[in-house]
Amino acid sequence: MIVTVTLNVALDVTYPVPTLEVGGSHVVGTPHARAGGKGVNVARVLHQHGCPVLATGLVGGPTGADVRDDLAAAGVAHDFAEVAGPSRRTVTVVAADSGDATAFNEPGPEVSAAEWGAFVRHLESLLAEASVVVLSGSLPGVPVYAYRELTRLAQRHGTAVVLDATQVALLAALEAGPDIVKPNASELAATTGLTSPVEGAGQLRDRGARAVVASLGVDGLLAHTPDGLWRASIPERLAGNPTGAGDACVAALAAGIAEGWAWPQRLRTAVAWSAAAVVAPHAGTVDPDTRDRVHDHILVEEIHAADVHR
Amino acid sequence: MIVTVTLNVALDVTYPVPTLEVGGSHVVGTPHARAGGKGVNVARVLHQHGCPVLATGLVGGPTGADVRDDLAAAGVAHDFAEVAGPSRRTVTVVAADSGDATAFNEPGPEVSAAEWGAFVRHLESLLAEASVVVLSGSLPGVPVYAYRELTRLAQRHGTAVVLDATQVALLAALEAGPDIVKPNASELAATTGLTSPVEGAGQLRDRGARAVVASLGVDGLLAHTPDGLWRASIPERLAGNPTGAGDACVAALAAGIAEGWAWPQRLRTAVAWSAAAVVAPHAGTVDPDTRDRVHDHILVEEIHAADVHR
Repeated sequence: MIVTVTLNVALDVTYPVPTLEVGGSHVVGTPHARAGGKGVNVARVLHQHGCPVLATGLVGGPTGADVRDDLAAAGVAHDFAEVAGPSRRTVTVVAADSGDATAFNEPGPEVSAAEWGAFVRHLESLLAEASVVVLSGSLPGVPVYAYRELTRLAQRHGTAVVLDATQVALLAALEAGPDIVKPNASELAATTGLTSPVEGAGQLRDRGARAVVASLGVDGLLAHTPDGLWRASIPERLAGNPTGAGDACVAALAAGIAEGWAWPQRLRTAVAWSAAAVVAPHAGTVDPDTRDRVHDHILVEEIHAADVHR
Repeated sequence: MIVTVTLNVALDVTYPVPTLEVGGSHVVGTPHARAGGKGVNVARVLHQHGCPVLATGLVGGPTGADVRDDLAAAGVAHDFAEVAGPSRRTVTVVAADSGDATAFNEPGPEVSAAEWGAFVRHLESLLAEASVVVLSGSLPGVPVYAYRELTRLAQRHGTAVVLDATQVALLAALEAGPDIVKPNASELAATTGLTSPVEGAGQLRDRGARAVVASLGVDGLLAHTPDGLWRASIPERLAGNPTGAGDACVAALAAGIAEGWAWPQRLRTAVAWSAAAVVAPHAGTVDPDTRDRVHDHILVEEIHAADVHR
């Protein structure tokens, strides 16, 4: 089983408007609300592909109840720990005329030391059944070393860790040696100060990550691993909403560990699911036709050290 | 006692952002939430001025519970009817760099025929104690003739009606003969198709309103009444947030009926409270220093029919 951890779940609300006028007042169309947060999206994608998955994390207040209800309606297994502070909302305003999606993300609740301790014990109780744990997304009001603590907990139980985090939350977790970290290009550059993805990924490995899979947008994926260096990409450009492509990638990487796939198969699947997430209307969903159509066209190439200016 | 009716209450949420970038993703500062809706704001202003007031209307879901809790914390008496659909939110994004406030208003819940009937009976039970009822703001999913039905109900109980509504909700209520309707200039023009406020107000009276008080922004108020025609204005321009100025005006008009003030005193008070609402940080609040400072400088002039091109 794969366990996904979403410490800062969200109720993702979409406001449709005909046009977005800064400084104006808009009567929005019927809002659409959906359980979100990166780990929740990863769980949705795994559930869609029949991979045994359990979503956990912290929820609170009426927003947290809405998140649980929405996951139950979607059939995604979940077992969250309750906190007193209400889970956050995100509001995305989608303008019909331009297609622009403008997002406003609340920061999330403060979490007490007692609540954090209770969550760590809760996660520990779930790890006995888990081969992989996914730690994904922003942190609410918890210590910045939260992902380091959870990575070490998973390792004590022999559970592999896939981490999708940014900035100090990522840096603090590296020394615990997560199995795979998945930054995107701008996160990698911001975190390492290096513009070359190969060099940046190498630096994250030097700091403790066992493998790094960097998502480079239309340039596909770069995998820097103990077994070698690969690039995987797709020879076409798909139009759509890139939100959620990273979560689909993380889902494939977690499935690859759980299923024992070699790196090329992991990367091929990760590119296919990511591309098919761009075409799908919501984060946490993969368009099956696109996924199946592109799968055999994905190019996975091993890069040799001599070819890399490092 | 004055009863304010807010059929479409809202939890007004403010998102502070450093700058608003259309198409961007924003992590917002700590959101601020406050009970709102026009009738709720009117009740707040009356409560601030020591006028006996009760806020009623429809509330539902967790948002409705938040609205009730916020009014209780503010000490505003309230007695709402519960509906199954959740009360709406409004989200206002305030950009620190430009000062722009960009508002997104959800439409509000659907209300069943049984819920509407229960509310009408609930309001009827409150009217025995009420000298004035204020009907204010947008309609949720209720029939468009809702304000006409409530106006007739109030009249059967000898309760005066102050109505602040727009478009078809306003037009449908006119034939019931509300005591005062308060459109602003653009609402008046949109409703009547006339650019002259005097002519527009006259048309609304021809259609059934006993008196019309049009709020004309920096040009103050125009009152078209059975007792005469007045203009009231302030010889200075106040900077601030005009949201809530109309609600402060309605509060003063309702207080004027309840207290038996003549039209000049009603209009002087309405201009003072409106101007002082522009300076206050939130809708439903009047800045007392501004109110007291401007009061004696307000110009109220009677206009004679011969002076008006009608």
